[in-house]
Amino acid sequence: MLKIALVFLTGLFFLSLRPYCCGCSNILVVPMDGSHWINMEIILRELHIRGHNITVIHSAKSWYIPNNSTFYTSITRRMMEDEADKNFYNKMVLKVMECRKSWTFMHTFCQNDLIGSMLGQGNKILAGATAEILDDPVFIKKLQDTKFDLMLTDPGLPIGALLGSYLKLPMVFNVRWINTGEAHFTIAPSPLSYVPVSGSELSDQMDFLERTKNLLHYLHNLAQQHFIINPHYSDLLQRHFPPGSDLMSLQLAADIWLIRTDFVFEFPRPTMPNVVYIGGFQCKEAHPLPAELEDFMQSSGDHGVVFMSLGTLVSALSCETMEAIAAAFARLPQKVLWKFVGEKPSSLGNNTLLVKWLPQNDVLGHPKTRAFVAHGGTNGMYEAIYHGVPVVGLPLFFDQFDNILRLKVRGAARMVEAGSLTEESFLEALKDVLETPSYSNNMKRLSQLHQDLPMSPMDTAVFWIEYVIRNKGAAHLQAAGFSLPWYSYFCLDVAVFFIIITAAAIWASVTAYRNLFCHKSRRKRKAE
Amino acid sequence: MLKIALVFLTGLFFLSLRPYCCGCSNILVVPMDGSHWINMEIILRELHIRGHNITVIHSAKSWYIPNNSTFYTSITRRMMEDEADKNFYNKMVLKVMECRKSWTFMHTFCQNDLIGSMLGQGNKILAGATAEILDDPVFIKKLQDTKFDLMLTDPGLPIGALLGSYLKLPMVFNVRWINTGEAHFTIAPSPLSYVPVSGSELSDQMDFLERTKNLLHYLHNLAQQHFIINPHYSDLLQRHFPPGSDLMSLQLAADIWLIRTDFVFEFPRPTMPNVVYIGGFQCKEAHPLPAELEDFMQSSGDHGVVFMSLGTLVSALSCETMEAIAAAFARLPQKVLWKFVGEKPSSLGNNTLLVKWLPQNDVLGHPKTRAFVAHGGTNGMYEAIYHGVPVVGLPLFFDQFDNILRLKVRGAARMVEAGSLTEESFLEALKDVLETPSYSNNMKRLSQLHQDLPMSPMDTAVFWIEYVIRNKGAAHLQAAGFSLPWYSYFCLDVAVFFIIITAAAIWASVTAYRNLFCHKSRRKRKAE
Repeated sequence: MLKIALVFLTGLFFLSLRPYCCGCSNILVVPMDGSHWINMEIILRELHIRGHNITVIHSAKSWYIPNNSTFYTSITRRMMEDEADKNFYNKMVLKVMECRKSWTFMHTFCQNDLIGSMLGQGNKILAGATAEILDDPVFIKKLQDTKFDLMLTDPGLPIGALLGSYLKLPMVFNVRWINTGEAHFTIAPSPLSYVPVSGSELSDQMDFLERTKNLLHYLHNLAQQHFIINPHYSDLLQRHFPPGSDLMSLQLAADIWLIRTDFVFEFPRPTMPNVVYIGGFQCKEAHPLPAELEDFMQSSGDHGVVFMSLGTLVSALSCETMEAIAAAFARLPQKVLWKFVGEKPSSLGNNTLLVKWLPQNDVLGHPKTRAFVAHGGTNGMYEAIYHGVPVVGLPLFFDQFDNILRLKVRGAARMVEAGSLTEESFLEALKDVLETPSYSNNMKRLSQLHQDLPMSPMDTAVFWIEYVIRNKGAAHLQAAGFSLPWYSYFCLDVAVFFIIITAAAIWASVTAYRNLFCHKSRRKRKAE
Repeated sequence: MLKIALVFLTGLFFLSLRPYCCGCSNILVVPMDGSHWINMEIILRELHIRGHNITVIHSAKSWYIPNNSTFYTSITRRMMEDEADKNFYNKMVLKVMECRKSWTFMHTFCQNDLIGSMLGQGNKILAGATAEILDDPVFIKKLQDTKFDLMLTDPGLPIGALLGSYLKLPMVFNVRWINTGEAHFTIAPSPLSYVPVSGSELSDQMDFLERTKNLLHYLHNLAQQHFIINPHYSDLLQRHFPPGSDLMSLQLAADIWLIRTDFVFEFPRPTMPNVVYIGGFQCKEAHPLPAELEDFMQSSGDHGVVFMSLGTLVSALSCETMEAIAAAFARLPQKVLWKFVGEKPSSLGNNTLLVKWLPQNDVLGHPKTRAFVAHGGTNGMYEAIYHGVPVVGLPLFFDQFDNILRLKVRGAARMVEAGSLTEESFLEALKDVLETPSYSNNMKRLSQLHQDLPMSPMDTAVFWIEYVIRNKGAAHLQAAGFSLPWYSYFCLDVAVFFIIITAAAIWASVTAYRNLFCHKSRRKRKAE
């Protein structure tokens, strides 16, 4: 009897830990490559464990997405990766560094132009790839016959959103970037007085000039969207979608937006009922390190370890910068663990260990880790927050400047310009973060708030994906405003109506007054 | 061993059902009376069970809030109830009915005027009551000495928000109404093109004229706030709060807004990171009915039962209306259960049972209940949604018209005008709801969506209350825009700057062109 009760209660306990599964559904996935895939893969593994059948469409030449997997069926199609320049990211870093030599107020616009031109090229290839799919009736028939229950996609590039709309599938976005900026700029009202535009390197506390810059950035991004991205899709939309469809209206039809954001990191801003936050869902408790690494960590004594990693796509810092970094590290009492690819710097100190790969989450979660020298990629920033490790940021491109800024204004990071980095400036920033307790304390407070949730971000993500499957969408959470033309959305037609009414009333009053006045004065004159 | 494991797992199971408690905190509560207290009481009982000490400030002449309670300490102070007219609500119903005889486009403004005048009177009394508290140093000292950890208040009337701000307490709102409308109008951007203003009786699908009406309603409410409500507090704010404080800035300092809304009911609209939805948190599974009532329900056979209740505060329908309702009920094949106070209608049929009080939630959850004839109070509407019972609405005042409209546009309710109700019109609406399956099906779909949540609304409410206590606030979830002056919030200063720059550029170009042109033509003339 006791045994039965035990089994029953064990079952109840594990059931109560996670929402119920809605059975084996067919999920079609169009992910993004690179670090975005790391996010998608974790969710897909979880969905697979819960019994869902997963089909992933990706490029055969993908950087990160394997063609053979135990947890999804692979469909390979031509994608952006098939035509990408392998040295693209390194070239981009050099161009960004060039931009940052210009006047501070202007360099963000220069960087945005680079991103705009990159988006233009990428979307041109993507639009072609999407057209190939939609123009292939055999492939489309195969997809339709599979009777998918859901399109799960990262809409950073719009192929998934277009395909999901075309197949009329309920749709969930796993998103942080869409169109020319952060996801909220597409789905929610974003007052420009306190919501900094992506790429502007502004915080939510802006003075008059900063608000002016923010508005200019918004207009800049809007122009990029209309003149650089949208034109690539116009032919495709005309041929395959109902009249009047545009890229944004198809994106706004997504049922749930799982935004990879948490407000301990992002500045608080308006949101929408069909937005769900899963920022940091990939973070987890640290596992023990391999013996060799553990010995190195322990050898640091009370000083602890500084951990440096600049992500996986870039090895573009100049030799001088690498030497300066190595020399600064050599002057620290801490040990340094540096994820490093390339030629070993000559100024490397005895305290520094270079490794080609290491388990980043486990190193960040190690009690000896004192600071994280990072490029500011989103995944790394959430791992740093999760484990409460303060950051010295060396942002290189894209959102990395904005990301480091978000931790900087919360007193949990310092930012160093990679282009003008010297041994002294880097050492000063390192020492500041290592020796001023507030950096560590502020990051620990962020960590505490980030983990104080009613439900883990991963369980939240899975719940809402299954919610859309079992309810065949979530139309009741979508705002009606999305279907309005822009002039109606902003009530400009009503405003014009009011102006006309007011002008007519003033004109009528003035005319009536004049007539009356003239009439009286005419009568007076006559009387005289 | 097995026994120990059993006890351990049982403990784990129950722990995992709810978020952890943060210990015995002191919570100061300023509730609202009437049906609002029903909502607050349920949360307070839950907080009491979880070990928190609760102190409630209320009027000794309260309608609903007992002076003696097992789960809170009572502090009685002069409040609005001390000066309220007991027949107020019945008089209000008659005035609203008078309003509704006017032109449809205008009657919502007439009703809003009534509410505005009521809010003016209420806030005058409230401002006096608040001043009495803040001017009483002994009382304030007593509150300060108790070292409260949190102010939990329903900000429908602002005394709690003012007192909480004065005592510098972290603050949680249990809210649906604040100032002159629904909570979102104070805390979140509300685009007037698809967010209907409270009291406008509009849906989220508005044509041009309706959007015009919506904008007028917004301006009407804004004027009421500025000219009818705010002036009562200006002296108080000047004497007791930092310079520049106004009612809205103190309200916007609340850490978490527990809004009693769910988007199966409310139209989807922008929201904010510190808004948490707990709509329908008071709903629960139906308990068995008392034997006599159960017999009555069962006697209805396959036809089932129609349940009618117009809430607790009103008994103002005219005798003719009551007779028409009773006569219509008498012609139904269903049995009718009518929560009724007053003289028995002469046209009452044998199928109708009048009762003074009954457990509404249990009747709505009974499998024999086929329709709910209701005035449209929020609590009743959420109970109807929870149990999937379609509604025939007889709204009388306040938000009841808007509430019924929300179910009507979802095909789950019919609305009947109480002022012009006849036996035939009421019977037609009743038969429509009882005999057309879509009403019941739509309400069952709403019920399914309403209950499909990762966590119960009550657990959500308790989690966020304890979150604010253990983190001593939630400042990181508050948008920075709240502290900006209105012209900066809307970037009007930047817009003026742009206009001046553009005008200057045009002027400079025209001047340069003229000078150049004149110069050239002068030279030409000279040359000739």
